[in-house]
Amino acid sequence: MAYINDNYLKLKAGYLFPEIGRRVKTFQDANPSAKVIRMGIGDVTEPLPPAVIEAMHKAVDEMGRRETFRGYGPEQGYDFLRDAIAKNDFTARGCNVAADEIFLSDGAKCDCGNILDVLGSQNIVAVTDPVYPVYVDTNVMAGHTGPADESGKYSGLVYLRSTAQDGFSPELPTQKVDVIYLCSPNNPTGTVISRQRLTQWVEHARKNGSFILFDAAYEAYISDPSVPHSIYEIPGARDVAIEFRSFSKTAGFTGVRAAFTVVPKTLIGKTRDGSAVDVYRLWSRRHATKFNGVNYIVQRACEAIYSDAGRKQVRALVDFYMTNARIIREKLAATGMKVFGGVNAPYVWAGTPAGLTSWQFFDKLLSECHVVCTPGSGFGSCGEGYVRLSAFNSRQNVEEAMRRIESTRR
Amino acid sequence: MAYINDNYLKLKAGYLFPEIGRRVKTFQDANPSAKVIRMGIGDVTEPLPPAVIEAMHKAVDEMGRRETFRGYGPEQGYDFLRDAIAKNDFTARGCNVAADEIFLSDGAKCDCGNILDVLGSQNIVAVTDPVYPVYVDTNVMAGHTGPADESGKYSGLVYLRSTAQDGFSPELPTQKVDVIYLCSPNNPTGTVISRQRLTQWVEHARKNGSFILFDAAYEAYISDPSVPHSIYEIPGARDVAIEFRSFSKTAGFTGVRAAFTVVPKTLIGKTRDGSAVDVYRLWSRRHATKFNGVNYIVQRACEAIYSDAGRKQVRALVDFYMTNARIIREKLAATGMKVFGGVNAPYVWAGTPAGLTSWQFFDKLLSECHVVCTPGSGFGSCGEGYVRLSAFNSRQNVEEAMRRIESTRR
Repeated sequence: MAYINDNYLKLKAGYLFPEIGRRVKTFQDANPSAKVIRMGIGDVTEPLPPAVIEAMHKAVDEMGRRETFRGYGPEQGYDFLRDAIAKNDFTARGCNVAADEIFLSDGAKCDCGNILDVLGSQNIVAVTDPVYPVYVDTNVMAGHTGPADESGKYSGLVYLRSTAQDGFSPELPTQKVDVIYLCSPNNPTGTVISRQRLTQWVEHARKNGSFILFDAAYEAYISDPSVPHSIYEIPGARDVAIEFRSFSKTAGFTGVRAAFTVVPKTLIGKTRDGSAVDVYRLWSRRHATKFNGVNYIVQRACEAIYSDAGRKQVRALVDFYMTNARIIREKLAATGMKVFGGVNAPYVWAGTPAGLTSWQFFDKLLSECHVVCTPGSGFGSCGEGYVRLSAFNSRQNVEEAMRRIESTRR
Repeated sequence: MAYINDNYLKLKAGYLFPEIGRRVKTFQDANPSAKVIRMGIGDVTEPLPPAVIEAMHKAVDEMGRRETFRGYGPEQGYDFLRDAIAKNDFTARGCNVAADEIFLSDGAKCDCGNILDVLGSQNIVAVTDPVYPVYVDTNVMAGHTGPADESGKYSGLVYLRSTAQDGFSPELPTQKVDVIYLCSPNNPTGTVISRQRLTQWVEHARKNGSFILFDAAYEAYISDPSVPHSIYEIPGARDVAIEFRSFSKTAGFTGVRAAFTVVPKTLIGKTRDGSAVDVYRLWSRRHATKFNGVNYIVQRACEAIYSDAGRKQVRALVDFYMTNARIIREKLAATGMKVFGGVNAPYVWAGTPAGLTSWQFFDKLLSECHVVCTPGSGFGSCGEGYVRLSAFNSRQNVEEAMRRIESTRR
């Protein structure tokens, strides 16, 4: 028998969403007539914008004619799209990001994991608590941790506490760390890192020679003009940060699959013996060797998002979900719950009432209101006592869910 | 500074295709009027089949309406597609492969690299020589090798010679190896592993407890009815083999991106301390954590390949390229060159004339015939003295290229 990667066995079996699915199924089987409203997993519900649909039809037709057919594209993405991204997402916001520092991919989740391929296994890695589980699990798989303890924390990782006291903005590390994952707007808490705070993070990373892996998958949901959309809005970030972006939540592309990662050419790492190496070269090599580019039709769909019509339609989509978020936030607050998020992110993070644990409140919401949320404790120990509610739903479902919660909480 | 993965620095800088690109550009700049015909990189040229185009338009429309919109799909692929694959590619050929053992992905190249994530780093890995470079490079990146020697061979890998003497069917290893990459129909040689020989391989793997990573990306090009399309046609293969398949060369999907990997539930590996673990569980976890499924529209396109119309259209596409292959093979043979492949694969592997090295003949073909091939030595030392010609081209280009070669070789 060949050897398997033992590190996978350290992963905790009960992953959050399967456990939610199990409990919902049990409830639904016992209560077949209950109309369950799912506000757990953050998946979009509205159709793709018309400009995107039009661009895809056009590209499909191109693929059906010999003269316009496209085979392998550049692994990093077509120039038409990289140029549109550089111009609209970065230059327009005063960020110095070149088109050839943008790498298209099929998902920010994938890239958050894949980036570890080019980083050394001896790095000390910091994550926040609560945290998007993929950051942790991919480090476990890569052998960067020991086993998990009772609370679910893996030895070898540094956990940065993020609590209600500091508005769920994670604290800076007190020990030396090499790689730090930051997510703003945050999944799961829906909170953001302010410009001032992000400046502190960049300065900290520059001083300590750390890399920041900045996950900005939800940047389209920022409504406060003072909040940075990109870490490259902060001076000096080019030397310390990699940024992950996604079209999934921007334009409803969860089933379409498109994202991109920015690796600045000025990001320098070191070898075991201390020589300097640019990460850009390594990531380029990885991308060309282990990836083969994003579907051409999808790249045309992404391009359409940056057209005048596309931009307006995407804005309307984001506004729609953000109105949902506002309704959830206001209604829950009105019942006396402590709420975070929902202003610059499509997630509302709500403190559970009367000392209930996350799972206890999950069960209560499910059995009494037939509403599914995500228990905060599934994202880390600092998430205990909270639940996440997603604004990705129809208006009707959101209003109905809030009516049910209001009536049981009165 | 954070650490980078030093193993990337072992990769040889001059990757094959960039070097080809460089030489072609130099030639084209010096000879701007020369009409260069590219038969190097194996990329399809014909448009997508009508059944595929129709299915994609329909799926695009579904994504534009709320009632039929799809967000995140199952990471492993939709049942409608996994069922179609299981039935048509496996059950129909007498292979025992269940639909839930099939994992859709965006590329066989990606999966050939990603599979290493779930395997132990202490495995002894064997590749053939000549070899598809991705198998080697991804092992180098993962730290499974030492540096490369003068001939380009990495220490720590076992190279299985594959030469004209045995019709470019690789020899069985004489030492114990844990993981073996086999590719049939072969890239680059265009040769296949016979049923008898593949049976020997499976028996060898069963006896030695090795895993076979079987790359069947080109199976649609098999014309000889005795040649296995899947390793699971061989009894006992379910216990030792993972199979990679691709829609890229089958249906012209190089720019569409769809492939799948079969991981049988009966494939058992071992931990460092010798406990048995099924690889299926690990790969499922990897797929759910580091991948988010294939685009819904693309999955409907794949499904259409299995319809009656789709099947006929794909067959016509394959036949078109195989006629090109026959023309190349026959014309080169007529000039006195020793040729392999081109019967069950879209590649022709031709011995260089009069003691020329692969690169010398590449330069000669380029400068005298304005035809681009791929030097065999770029695939390993046993490829020295050969070049690969791809049948993916228009009929007109193929015939013109052969005319030019015939006239200079006369």
